[in-house]
Order: sequence, then structure tokens, then C-alpha cells
Amino acid sequence: MASTPTVDHRLSDRDENVHLGIWDNSLDPALTVESGDVVRFECRGAPNGSLDAESTVADLANRSSAGHPLTGPVAVAGAEPGDVLQVDLLAFQHKGFGVSYFPPGESGQGLLPEEFPEPGIHVWDLEGDVGRFVNGIEVPLDPFPGVVGVAPAADGEHSTTPPRRVGGNMDVKHFTAGSTVYLPVEVAGALFSVGDCHGAQGDGEVCLTGIEAPMFVTARLSVQTDMAIDQPRFETNGPFTPTGHDERMYGTTGIADDLMEATRLAIRHMIDYLHEERGLTRAEAYILCSAAVDLKVSQVVDAPNWTVSAYLAESLFPPTDRTDREE
Amino acid sequence: MASTPTVDHRLSDRDENVHLGIWDNSLDPALTVESGDVVRFECRGAPNGSLDAESTVADLANRSSAGHPLTGPVAVAGAEPGDVLQVDLLAFQHKGFGVSYFPPGESGQGLLPEEFPEPGIHVWDLEGDVGRFVNGIEVPLDPFPGVVGVAPAADGEHSTTPPRRVGGNMDVKHFTAGSTVYLPVEVAGALFSVGDCHGAQGDGEVCLTGIEAPMFVTARLSVQTDMAIDQPRFETNGPFTPTGHDERMYGTTGIADDLMEATRLAIRHMIDYLHEERGLTRAEAYILCSAAVDLKVSQVVDAPNWTVSAYLAESLFPPTDRTDREE
Repeated sequence: MASTPTVDHRLSDRDENVHLGIWDNSLDPALTVESGDVVRFECRGAPNGSLDAESTVADLANRSSAGHPLTGPVAVAGAEPGDVLQVDLLAFQHKGFGVSYFPPGESGQGLLPEEFPEPGIHVWDLEGDVGRFVNGIEVPLDPFPGVVGVAPAADGEHSTTPPRRVGGNMDVKHFTAGSTVYLPVEVAGALFSVGDCHGAQGDGEVCLTGIEAPMFVTARLSVQTDMAIDQPRFETNGPFTPTGHDERMYGTTGIADDLMEATRLAIRHMIDYLHEERGLTRAEAYILCSAAVDLKVSQVVDAPNWTVSAYLAESLFPPTDRTDREE
Repeated sequence: MASTPTVDHRLSDRDENVHLGIWDNSLDPALTVESGDVVRFECRGAPNGSLDAESTVADLANRSSAGHPLTGPVAVAGAEPGDVLQVDLLAFQHKGFGVSYFPPGESGQGLLPEEFPEPGIHVWDLEGDVGRFVNGIEVPLDPFPGVVGVAPAADGEHSTTPPRRVGGNMDVKHFTAGSTVYLPVEVAGALFSVGDCHGAQGDGEVCLTGIEAPMFVTARLSVQTDMAIDQPRFETNGPFTPTGHDERMYGTTGIADDLMEATRLAIRHMIDYLHEERGLTRAEAYILCSAAVDLKVSQVVDAPNWTVSAYLAESLFPPTDRTDREE
């Protein structure tokens, strides 16, 4: 991981450098670079400025509905359909705050909308590598872009909400500094954009949001002509664990004959645990799951029932609240 | 993790201590213990002796179809429906070999049966903490029981293949030594059984099998009367990573509007990578995915497309074959 990369270009989050909620291969490039150039992108948070460091649940009603603000697109000279755009993620810098929230259940968004009819929010103070939650709980930060992608070949406007073959809103929490993402190029110049940065996120992002934070992203963009990939791939140096080290985890299982239902059950059981045993409200528990609980597919072969497991790292809690403190 | 627990009872893998392929609350206990007792279980491998250290693909046709051989049941005095059985997993000892295999595609078993019409097998030499694969690839061992459970309340015989509310074939790879599993008790005495041990397994167990190995399992069984859980829960001290430390991973994504299809895509892409870039046959790649590649649910909220990611640890490969050796 290069901590002080040489930056060749800077792209601020001014309106002329940002596109909102859509991928469209007809957008004019905000910048054109050579293969191998390093760009420092300023990225707005997902709420596009409509939530800030003192927002409350009342502000959610006025949250921007325009979709992800993405910085770009950047054209990379020489990139052609069939090539691969290699994105070396070099550095991230947050701006001191982030926000996690879930909309009212009637929106149908998030993993458990029917169980959370009322909306919820938490504003995180971000200080260095730590995000502060309630009750002394601290979530280690390891920022990544929720959205990283290139323009699709299909003409017209395409929502940034679902990820697709060319990447986009993949929300893979391991796209952290020191990692490399490979994207299949579908149009000349690739037309790369990035945004929706998260200070941290659990595998699953279950309440709909990670720690949504405006951020600077420094990345090297390189064209690879000798690779062929069908969907995005990546390399990451870790950490693989939620906290960066192997440690005591509390786990719940979800066992069901549908993989999404098994996922819901694992998270429901973790919310139960955080509420009943660890003193969080159910809304706080839902948000903490989205920011710091990891979902793994334990097995998909023991028909007709599958196992999904949810993992909670004990070190998120302050030392006085740890269940292993007597051990 | 207690490496030398005091053993109160030993239960061998003789026929009278083993039940095959079924859960049934009318089975006579092989042993009755007090809450808090430590039992050392001898567990047959999943093939129930029908595959051994020199089996080949031809032997798969004669593989036992009787289902998991489980050692037990053990009645725990005082356990009543509504209680929780706490299972502290203390120690595992393999017997020097294990086997991974997938049946012919026509069986419909495994994640990708249509892509693997012909069966495949690998016999692993297990030496200490390492399982040996092809091409110098070594998989770190951290054994766990694929099946750990108690008898269901519903009368009659129930297949051991699917996991259920009372546990069973959960195949959670983190049920390793030093971990604790909590099972909801549904019948008097709990009637605990264990088996189907794996030397290692990737999250997903995609080809149908982990490193299936006969093994000794030492566990403490304790009744908890002040807990109420809906499905199994667990605590684990790690390792959370495939190799026990954070390290360079190669990842593939599966992006689709169905979570199981996203899982299939992530594994297909990893098999492509292992075959095209790392010199494995597709059958070897499928088995290595099942034994050592981890599946994570990256996001389940960016409707209508979900992201599942598959992770391969670089350190599985011999130093001369590592892609990061120039770095």
C-alpha cells in the first residue's frame, strides 16, 4: 500500500465533475488520463450533502433521492471494449463524519423493511481510523468506495443502484487501500467513475447503508489488454477480518431453504442478540449490523436447507462491556 | 482453547455408538452424562469407511449412500425442551488422511452439477496442521464437525443432510477447537450427536464435500437453562481468515438478481481463474474451492442485483507459484 502516491490529476466534487444516480456512456469525460496515471477524486457522500454531521432522523424525509453522486467519468486513453481497467486503490481520506441510516419500512429498502417501519439514523464521529457508535462501541475504519465502475455499453441512462457486469454499486468491503479492482471495459475510454464511500461496512450492508462519508479517493487507472473477465475481480491485502485481526467472534446462524431467507434469519438473530444481551435498541442493532457484522455463506450444498452465518467481533465493544473480560 | 482437557467419557466409533443418516428422538442413548462432562468422540468420516487413503474416482460408485455416520446420541442429564445445550469444542485429532469428492452431475448434488457431469476426487495426505493438494498447494487444517446437533422434537426419522433448527449439518467452518456452539434443546436429555468432520472447508462447501476425515472430537456438554435461542449460535476465537492470518486474497464477484445465482457466478469465476491462470484442471479447481475458498455476502440491499464474493488466499500456493512473489 503506497501511502504517499504521486498524484497526476485532481478531480474535485464540483457539480461539473459529478453525475447523479446514473451511468450513461454519452456523458462527457470530466477528465482524460493516460494509462497508469494516478487521480485523486473528491467524492461526495451518498446523501449528496442532504445529511451532515448534525442530522437527525427528522432530516431523513428530506434526504436526496437523486441517487449516488459519482465523481467522473474519467476517460482512460487507449481503453477499448474487451479490455480490463485495473484500478489500484492507493489511499482514502475521510472528512471527519459519516452517517448510517435506514428509511421507513414502507420504502421496501434494506434487508428487513417489514421489521423496521420507522426510520433510523446514526451520525458517526470519524477520528483517524475509528468511527464512534453508541455505548462506547467503536468501529475500526477501513474505507472503500461502494461504487466503482465503468460505463456500460448499453446506451441510455442506467440506475447506479444495482451493480452490474461493469461493476458499480458492488459494496465489496475489501476494496480498501492497497487493493486492486479489475473492471471489464465496454466502451472506448472505459469512462470510470467512483463514489459512495464507506468508512466501514459489514458484509451484507443489511440496513441499506454503511458508514456513508464524503471522502478523497486516490487511485491509479491502468488499461490491461491481455485479460478477459466476465465480471469484476479484485485483489486485496486485507484485513479480511472486521477488525484487522483474528479475534473472538459471536456468530448467529440462519438456516432456511432459501438463501436470502437464511440471510434474513442470521441478521434477525444477531439483532435479537445485540438487543437482548448487549443493550442496544433494535434500530441501533440494525445499523451496527450494517456497519460491522459480516455475513458468510457457510454452505449451499446441504439440500434443501442452506446455512448463512453472521459474525460480530467482540473488540467493537469497550473493554468493560466485553463478554470475554473474565477469561 | 484447552489443549489437554480432562476427558470424562470416551465413545468409540463402534456400530453400537453410531447412527447412520438419520436423526430420531427414539434412539437409545449410547451414553448418558452429567452437565459439564467432557466426552471424546471417535467419528467416522462422512463416507463411513467406503473411501480410504488410496481411493480413486472409480471407488465413488461404491461410496456409502447411508448418510452421515454420527457418534451418539449422548443424553445430558437434566436437559429439557426450551433449554440450550452448550457445546465447548476442545480438541480435534485427525487420522492422517481425508478425502474430497463430487458425485456425477446427474446426482444434482453440489453447487454446479450441470458443469461437472463427471465425478472427481482428491485424497488428502493430512500431516499435522496441513492438508496436501496438487501442484504443491497446501491447505491449512483447522478441523471442525460438519454435523453437530441434537434430536428434533418431531417423532420419526429425519435425514441428516439438511441442517435444521436443532443444528445438524450446518457446515459452519468456524466450529473449530476453542469455539462454543449453542443448540436449542427440543427433547429431554438433548440427545447430542456429532460427526462429518472436516479437516478444512471453504465457506460454501461448494463441490459438496470439505476435507472429509475420520477424527476424534473432544467436547464439553453443558445445559444452559437461562438462554432462549431460535436457531444455533456460536462463539469462535478464530481464525476467521482461511489461513489464520490476514494476507493477500484474490477475489471474484458474482452479481445477479438471485443470491444463489450470484453465489454460482462467484464460484464459476474463481474456477475460471484457477484453471486459466493457476494451472489447475477444472475438477481440481472445484475441489479446491470447496476446501479453501470463502464465500461472503457482500451486499443484499442494492436491488435488484446482489453481490457475492469468493476469496482465495495466496499463501495456499507454494512460494514459487505465488503471484505476489515479485512484489
